Amino acid sequence: MTGTATLAEIAREAGVSTPTVSKVLNGRADVAPATRERIEELLRRHGYRRRRSANQAAPLLELVFHELESAWAMEVIRGVENVVREEGLSVVLSESSGRLSLGQTWMEGVLARRPMGVVLVLSGLDHAQQEQLASRDIPFVVMDPAGDPGQDVPAVGATNWHGGLAATRHLLELGHRRIGVIAGPARMMCSRARTDGYRAALETAGIGFDPGLVREGDFHHEAGHVAGLELLRLPDRPTAVFTGNDLQALGLYEAARELGLRIPEDLSVVGFDDLPLARWVGPPLTTVRQPLTEMAEVATRMVLDLARGRKPSTLRVDLATSLVERSSTTRPRAGR
Amino acid sequence: MTGTATLAEIAREAGVSTPTVSKVLNGRADVAPATRERIEELLRRHGYRRRRSANQAAPLLELVFHELESAWAMEVIRGVENVVREEGLSVVLSESSGRLSLGQTWMEGVLARRPMGVVLVLSGLDHAQQEQLASRDIPFVVMDPAGDPGQDVPAVGATNWHGGLAATRHLLELGHRRIGVIAGPARMMCSRARTDGYRAALETAGIGFDPGLVREGDFHHEAGHVAGLELLRLPDRPTAVFTGNDLQALGLYEAARELGLRIPEDLSVVGFDDLPLARWVGPPLTTVRQPLTEMAEVATRMVLDLARGRKPSTLRVDLATSLVERSSTTRPRAGR
Repeated sequence: MTGTATLAEIAREAGVSTPTVSKVLNGRADVAPATRERIEELLRRHGYRRRRSANQAAPLLELVFHELESAWAMEVIRGVENVVREEGLSVVLSESSGRLSLGQTWMEGVLARRPMGVVLVLSGLDHAQQEQLASRDIPFVVMDPAGDPGQDVPAVGATNWHGGLAATRHLLELGHRRIGVIAGPARMMCSRARTDGYRAALETAGIGFDPGLVREGDFHHEAGHVAGLELLRLPDRPTAVFTGNDLQALGLYEAARELGLRIPEDLSVVGFDDLPLARWVGPPLTTVRQPLTEMAEVATRMVLDLARGRKPSTLRVDLATSLVERSSTTRPRAGR
Repeated sequence: MTGTATLAEIAREAGVSTPTVSKVLNGRADVAPATRERIEELLRRHGYRRRRSANQAAPLLELVFHELESAWAMEVIRGVENVVREEGLSVVLSESSGRLSLGQTWMEGVLARRPMGVVLVLSGLDHAQQEQLASRDIPFVVMDPAGDPGQDVPAVGATNWHGGLAATRHLLELGHRRIGVIAGPARMMCSRARTDGYRAALETAGIGFDPGLVREGDFHHEAGHVAGLELLRLPDRPTAVFTGNDLQALGLYEAARELGLRIPEDLSVVGFDDLPLARWVGPPLTTVRQPLTEMAEVATRMVLDLARGRKPSTLRVDLATSLVERSSTTRPRAGR
């Protein structure tokens, strides 16, 4: 036990028995909500920390997604499985189902299961939840944060800005000048970074950033389709488009097909992620590889290190993205 | 407690203490392997059954995949999550990593976690493992069995044979006569059933089954590519191909592109599964929809019913497949 107060002191202050405080610490359901809240508040106020050794934890790792629908969730799951299999651990999978923060039911389940740690994928914890995990000595790592996770939150990401830069430079080098972008949602830092990289490439090439060539999507196929139709119907349509992810690129493929435009002859396309399907579509997609499986492996190892009391040398790791050239990009046709 | 022997009798016969038998029942690691094996053997021989009430189980469901790489695993996970979210349960995800049966480490983890039940996806349990779960009153359901799970194993599948029949009839109705098949692995009952449906459609249409137009794949993209090149390079190549799943269809798309054949003008293609990507590829894929998410929902509800002592009305449920017509099929060109 560490911290400024003992369990007994917190129990006295809350006007409950010590076993009741214990129950709250262990996420047991049989404590009245108001009592639970009072105790959580005292744990927080006193900065209570239960020190736990790694072998007091269950051989479980919690993996939480913002949403499981996205095709890239599987790449992440594979990375986590690669590490836990070696370690003889099992994975508990949860989905925050579109809400960006996680509810109390989820938290009680985690506290009751006493996992080694928690890997959050695009799922934020609010400050009170971070404190709840900290007071039980359950470490967590955020993968590919949607927002700005804060200085003291361990996080694994990718070099999104560099990816956007590389994608756009590739198109510039092919000779494109009117380059559109179908960005991901602006509330996610990763999509902002990609679009900023696009903008930096244009500006360092001496080409002004044209807001008329920018659309915002939600990372799903249909958004790429809708935004693609808009961009391709412009009187002076772009000859190339950088899409914020591969699924939006496929939506753009569909828009091009509907308008009778050929890829890459009439339109060059660069995606982002390099999902397996990027190799399988026609034409195979030039894209920025984000090493999702490796990122998940690093995040999992980081959280296990933290569980074993090893401090990572850095709390923030960004793995490199890289351009993968396939067949969806070529030089613009003469006269355009 | 039910069964022909009590814990104490089994302990006496094994020459160990009752708590040691308890430890084995609960998957605890601190029992010597030889002792564990002797106790498991006695539990089996006596048909020992611990009766457990649903609230003695942890609020966990085990979900086990043969392999997580396949794109359709995500459809299954979504179905399981849909049910467990309503029920306030969490999912423990495991992968048997390409081995078709599961090891002892996995089993000990399950016994220690005491889940509500186990959903196995294309992962077989051997007879001893089935007995291990039964003796702890942990129910399991097999989804889309790779092999023949046996009469008394609860299982959820799809009408694979009807799917193969519908796919092939669709091609016959368009006027195709030389129809190839890139089947899935013959060791999986689901792929055998699909190919048999293909054969039945041909034969009831009075067209002989031609083994020269049949290839076997492993359900992955590359197998479709390799088999596709073989079929499309035949002197009298097929005008249409039914692929055992969508990923193999995409491999066939790639083979057609390489040989300069257009889909559907030069080659009609029908897939199987209807993964999200079937809508996104160019041209959008005509395919047989297998309701993977619904199948996972049914399997999950079935195992939870069993956990609560409700006997399902039937131990085997096959959900209907249905043909989804998109743009990868058309009439064969005149003269072919």
